Amino acid sequence: MIKAIGYAAKSSFSSLKPLSIERRNPGPHDVVVEILYCGICHSDIHQAQNEWKNTIYPCVPGHEITGRVVQVGSKVKKFKTGDAVAIGPMIDSCSECQSCQEGLEQYCEKGYLGAYNGNARYPSETNLTFGGFSNMIVVQQDFVFAIPKNIDLAEAAPLMCAGITTYSPLRYWNVGKGTKVGIVGLGGLGHMAIKLALAMGAEVTLITHSPEKKAHAKKLGVKKVIVSTDKKSMEKNANTLDFILSTIPESHDANPYIGLLKRDGVLTVVGCIAPLAKATDLSKMMFDRKTLSTSLLGGVNETEELLKFCSKNNIKADVKIIPIEDVNKAFKSIGKSEPDFRYVIDMTTIKNKKEEKGLLRILGL
Amino acid sequence: MIKAIGYAAKSSFSSLKPLSIERRNPGPHDVVVEILYCGICHSDIHQAQNEWKNTIYPCVPGHEITGRVVQVGSKVKKFKTGDAVAIGPMIDSCSECQSCQEGLEQYCEKGYLGAYNGNARYPSETNLTFGGFSNMIVVQQDFVFAIPKNIDLAEAAPLMCAGITTYSPLRYWNVGKGTKVGIVGLGGLGHMAIKLALAMGAEVTLITHSPEKKAHAKKLGVKKVIVSTDKKSMEKNANTLDFILSTIPESHDANPYIGLLKRDGVLTVVGCIAPLAKATDLSKMMFDRKTLSTSLLGGVNETEELLKFCSKNNIKADVKIIPIEDVNKAFKSIGKSEPDFRYVIDMTTIKNKKEEKGLLRILGL
Repeated sequence: MIKAIGYAAKSSFSSLKPLSIERRNPGPHDVVVEILYCGICHSDIHQAQNEWKNTIYPCVPGHEITGRVVQVGSKVKKFKTGDAVAIGPMIDSCSECQSCQEGLEQYCEKGYLGAYNGNARYPSETNLTFGGFSNMIVVQQDFVFAIPKNIDLAEAAPLMCAGITTYSPLRYWNVGKGTKVGIVGLGGLGHMAIKLALAMGAEVTLITHSPEKKAHAKKLGVKKVIVSTDKKSMEKNANTLDFILSTIPESHDANPYIGLLKRDGVLTVVGCIAPLAKATDLSKMMFDRKTLSTSLLGGVNETEELLKFCSKNNIKADVKIIPIEDVNKAFKSIGKSEPDFRYVIDMTTIKNKKEEKGLLRILGL
Repeated sequence: MIKAIGYAAKSSFSSLKPLSIERRNPGPHDVVVEILYCGICHSDIHQAQNEWKNTIYPCVPGHEITGRVVQVGSKVKKFKTGDAVAIGPMIDSCSECQSCQEGLEQYCEKGYLGAYNGNARYPSETNLTFGGFSNMIVVQQDFVFAIPKNIDLAEAAPLMCAGITTYSPLRYWNVGKGTKVGIVGLGGLGHMAIKLALAMGAEVTLITHSPEKKAHAKKLGVKKVIVSTDKKSMEKNANTLDFILSTIPESHDANPYIGLLKRDGVLTVVGCIAPLAKATDLSKMMFDRKTLSTSLLGGVNETEELLKFCSKNNIKADVKIIPIEDVNKAFKSIGKSEPDFRYVIDMTTIKNKKEEKGLLRILGL
C-alpha cells in the first residue's frame, strides 16, 4: 500500500485534521497522482457534516483534484509520468449498465464510485474511498483526465465539479447563440456557469439575493442582474428567460425562478439534493408549458469535451489559493455565504502535516 | 342577437338550471352551430363551483362541443350549412403574439378566449362567454373544426378537451414506437391518453388508485396496471417508464410517480392547475436527470392533426350519453370518483327547457 496523508472529518461536528491514510498499490489500469490542488465544493461541507445522512467516517473530502502523474500501471496508455491530470467526483462506475454504455457514468445504475465516501462496489477500490484533501491518489485511468496545456492546474481544479455540473445541463437543454439564460447564484458553480454560458453564445442574466455581487457579475460579462429579494424586479422580469440554472446549494423555493421563464422555458436545479422548500405551483407553469428539471455532474466523454471547450475558449475558474491549514476557516466562510470564486487548496502544504497521536487525537474527535 | 338556452350555475353552490342567454349575430368570419353534444370535463365542475376563484356568474360550462353548422358569415370559406363541426375550450386568441404566430394559441400571451367564463378581450366576443351546455353557439371560424366523417358526433366531443390535452404532451415529448408510457388515472383524460399513446406505438402502463379499473384498462390494450396505493408494486416498478402523464384532476403528490421514471424520464401533469400537494424531492430526480413538466390543451393546428390522427386510427372517446336534466347528477358522480368514460350530454334534450321565473328563480339561486 502507498502511505499518504489526508485531512479528515472524524464526525459531523469535528473540524478537518490530518489523518494517515493508505492508497492501494496501482493495478495495471491505475494511475498514481501526486495531488497539487484541490477545490473546495459545497458538497465537501455537506458530506463532512453528514448533511445527507450517509457519511462514513473518517471522511476525507475533495473531488476537484489536479496534479501530476507519478506512476502508471502496465496497461495504462493514456498517461505517462509527469502528465498534468485532473480527477473529479467519480472515480469508477460499473461500465456495463445502459447509462455507462451511453457514456453517462454519472447516472450509473449501480451508482458511480465517489472520490470520497464511496464504498467497495468496484474492483478499483476495496475500502472506503478518500478524496482529494490529500497528497496522493490512485485512480483507474478511465476516470483520469488530461489537462490542456493552456490551463493552470489551480484554475483547472474547479472545472472537475463546478465546471462539469454546470456545463452538462447547459448542453443538455441546448443553450446556444442568443439563448436567454439565467444563472441563480454567483458562487463556485454560478461563476463557472456564467463563463460557460457566455462562451456558448448565450445572453446571461444573474439572479442573486446579494446585490453586492453585481459588480463581479458585470465584470464576468453578465448583461443584467436581478436581485431575487426585490419583488418588483422579479415581476418586471417575469417570462423573459429561456433557461435557468439554479446553483443554490440547499433547499429553496423554485417558484419565483419558474416565474422568470418564458413559454417552454426550463429551470434546472443542480445545487440542491433535497426536497424543494415549497411545493411547485403548477398553475404558474401550465399556461406556459414550463419545465422543472435536474442534472448531476457529467459523463467521462462530456468531461473531456468540457476541458477542450475551456481550453479553446480560455475559460478557467476564479480561484483563491489557500494552504491546507486554512480549510476549516474556508468551510466556515462558505457556510456563511457562498463566495463568488472557488477556494482551491495548495495541496503541497499538506506534506509535512502529521496525524495527532494519543490524547490529542482523542480530544480532536 | 340569437336567443338560446343554456344550463347555468348562478353561484358556486347552486346546481345547473336552465337560463335564457343570447348569442351574437354572426359576423363575416363567424359560424353559427346548433350544438348536438357536449362532453362533461372536470374543468366544468371546477369552474361552476368556483374552485379556481375566478368564476363569473352566471356560468354556462361545456367546452367539448360538437354539432351542425346552421349559418355562416360572408367570409367563411371552410364551412357550409350542415357540416359536422367541433369546438373546444378556446374560441379565440390574439393571433399576434409569438405563441399565436407559432400556432400555440393555447399559450397566447394575452390569454386565449375561453368557451366559457371568458371576458371581452377579443373582437369576437363583447360579453362574458357561455359554453356548450346550450343549444346554440357562435364562434369565429378559426376555432371551429371539421369532424372527420368516420367519427360519431357524440364520440368526437371529448376529443376537443380530453383528447387534445393528452395528445399534445405525448407529441411534445416524442412518445412513439416502444416508448414506455405511464398514464396516471383512468378517467375522461386517462382513457383518451391510453388510446392515443397505444396508437403512437407506445407500451402503456396504467397507474391508478382504483384496482377495479384494471379490467377496463386491459380491454383498452394496457399491458400493465400499477396500483398506486400498493407500495410494493410502486417499488417494484421504480425506474421503468420513459414518460408519465398525470391526469389527476386535483392537487396531488407527484413524487411517487417521479419514482417510476427511468433516467431522463419526464412526468407531465395536465390535470392539476394548483400547487402540488408535496414539495418535489429533487434528491429523487437528480441521480436520474428526471424532469417534471406541464402542458395545456393544444393549438389549432395540433387539434386538426389530432382529429386526423383519430380518424386514421379509428380512435374515439368512450362515452355515456345523458339528457341535460341529468347533468347535476353526473357532476356529483364525477366529483366522487372519476368514471372511466366521458359523460356526453345529448344537447337536443335542452330545447324545451325554460328558465324558471319569479319566486322559483329566486329560490333556485
